[in-house]
Amino acid sequence: MGGAWLAAVGDLTLTALLTATCAVLVFAPWLAPLLASAIAGLRSRGEAKEAAARPTELAPLAGEAAIRSRLYSASALGRPAVVRRGRLRIAMLAPPWIEVPPRGYGGIELVVAHLTDALVDLGHDVVLFAPPGSRSRAQLLTPLERPHPQVIGQALEEADHVAQALAYVENPANGRFDLVHDHSGFVALAFADRLATPMLHTLHGPFDERTYGFYARHGHKAAMVAISAAQLRAAPPGLNVVGVIPNPLRVDDWPFRREKEDFLLWIGRMSPVKGPHRAIEVARLAERPLVLAGPVQPGQERFFSEHVEPHIDGQNVRYVGEVGGELKQQLFARAAALLMPIRWPEPFGMVMIEALACGTPVIAFREGSAEEIVDDGLTGFLVADEREMARAVGRLSEIDPERCRSVARERFDVERVARAYESAYRLVVGATTRSLARSQTVPRTRTPRSAMRVARSHSSGSVAAPASVTSRPISTRTRSSAAPAAQA
Amino acid sequence: MGGAWLAAVGDLTLTALLTATCAVLVFAPWLAPLLASAIAGLRSRGEAKEAAARPTELAPLAGEAAIRSRLYSASALGRPAVVRRGRLRIAMLAPPWIEVPPRGYGGIELVVAHLTDALVDLGHDVVLFAPPGSRSRAQLLTPLERPHPQVIGQALEEADHVAQALAYVENPANGRFDLVHDHSGFVALAFADRLATPMLHTLHGPFDERTYGFYARHGHKAAMVAISAAQLRAAPPGLNVVGVIPNPLRVDDWPFRREKEDFLLWIGRMSPVKGPHRAIEVARLAERPLVLAGPVQPGQERFFSEHVEPHIDGQNVRYVGEVGGELKQQLFARAAALLMPIRWPEPFGMVMIEALACGTPVIAFREGSAEEIVDDGLTGFLVADEREMARAVGRLSEIDPERCRSVARERFDVERVARAYESAYRLVVGATTRSLARSQTVPRTRTPRSAMRVARSHSSGSVAAPASVTSRPISTRTRSSAAPAAQA
Repeated sequence: MGGAWLAAVGDLTLTALLTATCAVLVFAPWLAPLLASAIAGLRSRGEAKEAAARPTELAPLAGEAAIRSRLYSASALGRPAVVRRGRLRIAMLAPPWIEVPPRGYGGIELVVAHLTDALVDLGHDVVLFAPPGSRSRAQLLTPLERPHPQVIGQALEEADHVAQALAYVENPANGRFDLVHDHSGFVALAFADRLATPMLHTLHGPFDERTYGFYARHGHKAAMVAISAAQLRAAPPGLNVVGVIPNPLRVDDWPFRREKEDFLLWIGRMSPVKGPHRAIEVARLAERPLVLAGPVQPGQERFFSEHVEPHIDGQNVRYVGEVGGELKQQLFARAAALLMPIRWPEPFGMVMIEALACGTPVIAFREGSAEEIVDDGLTGFLVADEREMARAVGRLSEIDPERCRSVARERFDVERVARAYESAYRLVVGATTRSLARSQTVPRTRTPRSAMRVARSHSSGSVAAPASVTSRPISTRTRSSAAPAAQA
Repeated sequence: MGGAWLAAVGDLTLTALLTATCAVLVFAPWLAPLLASAIAGLRSRGEAKEAAARPTELAPLAGEAAIRSRLYSASALGRPAVVRRGRLRIAMLAPPWIEVPPRGYGGIELVVAHLTDALVDLGHDVVLFAPPGSRSRAQLLTPLERPHPQVIGQALEEADHVAQALAYVENPANGRFDLVHDHSGFVALAFADRLATPMLHTLHGPFDERTYGFYARHGHKAAMVAISAAQLRAAPPGLNVVGVIPNPLRVDDWPFRREKEDFLLWIGRMSPVKGPHRAIEVARLAERPLVLAGPVQPGQERFFSEHVEPHIDGQNVRYVGEVGGELKQQLFARAAALLMPIRWPEPFGMVMIEALACGTPVIAFREGSAEEIVDDGLTGFLVADEREMARAVGRLSEIDPERCRSVARERFDVERVARAYESAYRLVVGATTRSLARSQTVPRTRTPRSAMRVARSHSSGSVAAPASVTSRPISTRTRSSAAPAAQA
């Protein structure tokens, strides 16, 4: 992961390198010294270029400027970049829909549950805002009367939950919070520029047609953490990404097993992008049995009946439906390998780290976050297509299950992830503190980047052509988060 | 309407009377002198009672205090209560889902379209925030790229739209706005206490299981206008209701017809609460033909096929499906009467004022807003059940179609409604100006009334009993909006 970034250094702009470095600093601070000299060489060239690209009236964003000045300083990079000191008071803002941790499905809620408990274990003072029924080692506050799993994404409940939580955070009677860590959706981020408390927002979903514009318009209002560098490939420019931190799991909750059985495992939704039909082809080519696990969701019935079901024979291809709990863990632990023949830019492949935690190798197409999770030849194989995947099955004896487990623990265990978030928090809190000391502006507000269009229409029917109403032209290029370029 | 309020004066608390008066002031300022003496008599008693009920540390809300002090003053009531002066700059915040005006269905969007144009005609400077494709005499700003009719109520689009609009309103480069008039949903209201610009929020929907708690927690953040006194019967205490203003229509857009045909008209969704089956029974009892109009929406198929369809014979009972445009207008104009055998607390019955505008009497059950729209014996009849409704059909010759039309124009025409809103705006702007002059607090913030529950849970499983985290106990009783009591 770090190696891939370093290999591409020659082609990077300074901005891209700095953003990538920032991610490294948070998630892999020990890599910082390796990057220091590369940055020193590029620095003067980059600064001149940036100055030319930036409109003269636009001061750099305070938070970013502070983070950059830290990165610019080679001496700062020569020693541990993040000084670990002092207890932080963190408002953890879960979504209002599902209990934390979830009883059934709930990816974000599981991340929030693990992270919150781990931060408490690290000695931080965490207040978790989540639906009633949630359980946490942190102090739990429940703005709403109940969870709302039937209306996920609705404005009424999200605004109700978020506005109450933020009012609590900013009420002096409740003491000072260092930071809001937001997982709740969109309302909190859209209004983050009206808070005095700094916010860190974890990007949980992909950038797609629906979310891209939202993040382009509101993403600058908080510091961002991505869950993979792959996720950022589709990001709009202008995001203030302070780190790439993977989703966590508790490695000790997963059973390690050295002796694997003969079967290959595929697990996921019965969707073409997830590739159950490709897994079937791979198993056929490799002459290995295959176990398919996962739900047939509404809309997937036809694909399943045409491309998957005809191959299920109970011998070479078995289908066990949706699995959870111990059955799921045993499948992961006993499988010869997990197959990931996906064809979409998945921001984070949770099943890959679950397999690794059980000591099970992963063979994955080079899509989405696969390159960041699988070390080719060490914990599995990265391949281009079904034929290569089938060949890689023949090389599984080269992979050491112990190594899979230890890599999972080093990179994805919740304590590791919580420490990475702790570093990100300190970057954001430190940047904000400096910014406040300079500007004395509370609450922080920035010139809006709205791309709102003006149309002066009359009942006669004439509608003026759209035009920008942004009062000051702002180039977001100089602030583009180019971390993904480092992977290209 | 005003008469019903006055009749109940003897039983009212001062608070209830003041709130009712406030509504009268906005919607029927000419009634103000009639109420002045009643208020003078109750004033000293009421003040003493209020002082006792109010926690000593709680100062009255600034906005309400200013409005009340105006009401307390008999001299202020002796002359026109609202001084009409000066042009207002208004940010009109439509929802992000459907064009303004709507091409098809869109009740709120039609209200916003009519009101916005009428305010421009009154000389005000209005900026309308609405989806692309909207048409208005006001300046139109379109925060989003397109309307979103497929995701109505979703947080992403609502937060995106509202946050951009409010950022524009509060950006000094765009000039000062006197007021935000919010129709957009829930996000704007939940964050209204973080704005420097005062907000007026029109209550467009009923208070139900889903919305009651939201308004209980966030309703105090803006001034409120209800669309009927009936709507407020289910309201939580603590709302700052500055007026009851009905939905408008353009009377001149509707055809007046003196000579009616023999048939009775029912129009609405094919839902039991709307009562198409009761209309059929009424027509049978009255021995009159009936025309049913309206859609069979998803989920209504069974009710329609069991309770409506069997009676359709093309003669005595005709069904014309969903109608719009000229066909709908002709049905309204030609019908002997509109039947409203509803059994739910409908906040506002738009079809009733459409019928009246065409000179067509309305016979309605005493439910929801019917009593506020129909003058019993003058523009139609208020009845208890099907039998009474059938008897009232026999008295339709007593109703003068000219009177129906003129009442519709006096009460519901858009110019009349726009002037009522203009008065409400001035109340809110005036109250805010005084409040600001006193406190110099920008942005306005109030002690949050969150009923958020604290639970300190640990993985061991113990969950503390819920408790209030509100730092200061606040009695909302003294601020209860008791207008509905005046109708009881």
